[in-house]
Amino acid sequence: MSDDARLEEEDLLTAEMPEEDGPHPDDRIDDERHDEENRLKPKYIRSVRDAFESGDNNAVYDLVEPLHPADVADLLELFDKDERGQLAAAITDLMSSEVVAELNDHVREDMMEALAPEAVATIVEQLETDDAVQLIEDLDEDDQQAILAEVDSEDRAAIESALAYPEETAGRLMSRHFVAVPEHMNVGGLIDYMRHEGDLAQEFYEVFVVDERHHPVGTCALSWVLTTPRHIKLTDVMKRDQTLIPVDTDQEEVALMFQKYNLISAAVVDESGRLVGQMTVDDIVHIISEEAGEDVLLLSGAGDGDINEPIREAFSSRVRWLIANLGTAVVASAIIAFFGAAIEKLVALAVLMPIVASIGGNAGTQTMAVAVRAIATNQLTRANTWKIVSRELRVALLNGVTIAVLIGIATAILFTPQLGTVIAVAMVINIIVSGMAGVLVPVMFERLDQDPAVASSVFVTMITDSMGFFAFLGLAVLAGLA
Amino acid sequence: MSDDARLEEEDLLTAEMPEEDGPHPDDRIDDERHDEENRLKPKYIRSVRDAFESGDNNAVYDLVEPLHPADVADLLELFDKDERGQLAAAITDLMSSEVVAELNDHVREDMMEALAPEAVATIVEQLETDDAVQLIEDLDEDDQQAILAEVDSEDRAAIESALAYPEETAGRLMSRHFVAVPEHMNVGGLIDYMRHEGDLAQEFYEVFVVDERHHPVGTCALSWVLTTPRHIKLTDVMKRDQTLIPVDTDQEEVALMFQKYNLISAAVVDESGRLVGQMTVDDIVHIISEEAGEDVLLLSGAGDGDINEPIREAFSSRVRWLIANLGTAVVASAIIAFFGAAIEKLVALAVLMPIVASIGGNAGTQTMAVAVRAIATNQLTRANTWKIVSRELRVALLNGVTIAVLIGIATAILFTPQLGTVIAVAMVINIIVSGMAGVLVPVMFERLDQDPAVASSVFVTMITDSMGFFAFLGLAVLAGLA
Repeated sequence: MSDDARLEEEDLLTAEMPEEDGPHPDDRIDDERHDEENRLKPKYIRSVRDAFESGDNNAVYDLVEPLHPADVADLLELFDKDERGQLAAAITDLMSSEVVAELNDHVREDMMEALAPEAVATIVEQLETDDAVQLIEDLDEDDQQAILAEVDSEDRAAIESALAYPEETAGRLMSRHFVAVPEHMNVGGLIDYMRHEGDLAQEFYEVFVVDERHHPVGTCALSWVLTTPRHIKLTDVMKRDQTLIPVDTDQEEVALMFQKYNLISAAVVDESGRLVGQMTVDDIVHIISEEAGEDVLLLSGAGDGDINEPIREAFSSRVRWLIANLGTAVVASAIIAFFGAAIEKLVALAVLMPIVASIGGNAGTQTMAVAVRAIATNQLTRANTWKIVSRELRVALLNGVTIAVLIGIATAILFTPQLGTVIAVAMVINIIVSGMAGVLVPVMFERLDQDPAVASSVFVTMITDSMGFFAFLGLAVLAGLA
Repeated sequence: MSDDARLEEEDLLTAEMPEEDGPHPDDRIDDERHDEENRLKPKYIRSVRDAFESGDNNAVYDLVEPLHPADVADLLELFDKDERGQLAAAITDLMSSEVVAELNDHVREDMMEALAPEAVATIVEQLETDDAVQLIEDLDEDDQQAILAEVDSEDRAAIESALAYPEETAGRLMSRHFVAVPEHMNVGGLIDYMRHEGDLAQEFYEVFVVDERHHPVGTCALSWVLTTPRHIKLTDVMKRDQTLIPVDTDQEEVALMFQKYNLISAAVVDESGRLVGQMTVDDIVHIISEEAGEDVLLLSGAGDGDINEPIREAFSSRVRWLIANLGTAVVASAIIAFFGAAIEKLVALAVLMPIVASIGGNAGTQTMAVAVRAIATNQLTRANTWKIVSRELRVALLNGVTIAVLIGIATAILFTPQLGTVIAVAMVINIIVSGMAGVLVPVMFERLDQDPAVASSVFVTMITDSMGFFAFLGLAVLAGLA
């Protein structure tokens, strides 16, 4: 962090910079259309809706015109399914390819299904290949074919080549636009080439240097190109240590590579090691957010979890989960039924038993959330599984003893000291079992190459509930209480 | 996507590109040190550990030397707390500032606390200001002062100015290295300046154009600079529509801005609107992953949820949550106790009641996960709350009826038709109540400016458990079953 290592803005500015009071920066964000968190204000949305409902398309257009494409997409999402086509028609020339690319998947699919194939094809031709693929990948095979038939042959070939890769892999997601230059080129040659051939609409951050077999040999950040004299060879400034992404890599793994190695862009290579595309961090950002956020949805069995998902699909994925949990609840009930006679004798058992199961369930969920996140971020691996299990065991012991003392004393006072002892011991057992299940079940699924977030919680719940009832009721019987 | 809009690699390559078989790309990743998901292999870790334990520091060095700094950091994290200092000593000159920046927060804090202030100061001076701040922000005030006293005055001033902003705000996180140029500059002038003043170690993606008051007026991607003739003025290529980040913006909001507007970097401005720093997407990537991933940890009360968190801290945050849930479980128990006489008469009630509560809990958790994610991603706002509530109500109705039919028939067969009817009605009621609680509780917390992920689940659990027992037992009594 020495002086000359800095690109100080002051060096470049000749004018004075008075410390006067400008507008408060919040003013820029907190305008008449956005609230302080950059969301569209309800009042603004109402004014668009009013204009829309009174059929005043010019007013709608004027209101929407200043919006960023991402906000136009948000606005469309806020309208009802059957209104969106009409709204889009009112603002036709604001419906840029950026707006389409920013739309929620479900909303976009709905809107595209409502359009004629020729209209969709026109949009597809304006999009980058990766966005175009996203646009049509969820449509029916027939619709896809009808649209592709209308697209010009070169774009069609690019889209079809992307669709040939499995969903959510680098080959499907990569951009086919990138700059690759031969090893003999120097900085001046690259700049001249880009001035001549370049395209202002295209943003990129690194150029790839390739050998004569078109295998990447290094990566060169544009900032290095710009800070290097013209005669220097690219091979002298490029970074040779690069992260190459095989075309068949899953998006989750791509996202982890970008995070781990702080990448801004990375070369995608085919089976023979040839450079075929690039992935850039701005595309990865959405994947990271999606992958990191989906654990909570998967663990709770909320499926896709998107508020724009059709009700039928939301119902279908959620009810399947509830039915699975019905199965585990029935197992727990069978255990209670087994101890029916004891409960008949001492109804206090029925009153207290859900406490043991419920706290065990919470303890298990805590450990499971930690384990699932640690597995997803590659922090919990074969190399440290037992270290983490022993860590969780110690936390569970501390938790178990603390809760057991609290509930034990309360039960001893309100019921009997014997019942207090029984519930305290049952609580320690259940919190420890739950803590261990919370880490071991996700680890087991990961070893079986299953997503730990998808299936863990049904199993952990079954273990914590059953063990809660079994330990408490079983100990009560053993202690001769009922 | 027309022809000339592409920067096609083929244009630049004169050599033939035979389609021959190179090494399989997986080979690059799946080397002797990494598995197919880029994690360090247990076998490799064992060999480092063996060398380390036999005191052969040269062998340790040779093994670690080829690793990327992110992998060196991972390796250190896998060693025990008391071994890390010794391992770091064995590979001293591989312990680059990148390694320190990549370390887990808890591990870094431990390691820094073990070092003398002078040693930490040496590391601090090698780091970028933002990384240096991250290094010392979690240390005690006294340790911070001792370290800063050893740091040269310019770096100290930069770090102190960052520490003056609250944690997790743009002012704390921003980079103070950026390129800002006056409006009159042209492309050639910028390139000449950067060649003269530039620093190869520094990577950046955009330059900021500022007016005479040092307020940003536009942003210029480096790829535009490189594809534009020298005589063109920057004001003619720059993008005027820019997203400015006030210094006091919370990191979560910064992350949402980057996602919403697909930013690669953004200017940070102070209260008077002057450009004071920049944030780049590679820093944001970690924040996005952290913020999106923390919902599952917060909802389950797992606190920090980091496997490197000290056991004492993990215990303290988790046990507080379990105690809160103990409170809600006691409420549910009180409801059961109220119906104690009914249970004594008909023990089947005790057997079946956890099913109603448990399935309600699951249904509530599903809706809550969806609502919490939708709020966190700014998709669920004041503008569409009632639309989403009505959507969730419909899903809950469908779920409720389906599950009620299943459990109702099973209960009618195994017990009595009356009990089957009671449990079916109780199930519909509880799933609907749970579904509504799952969306309304997080929305309420968000309106109260509380993080919905932190507190929602205790309340939702209390509602689903209590309502489950109350509806089932209450209906059974009303129906005259007990």
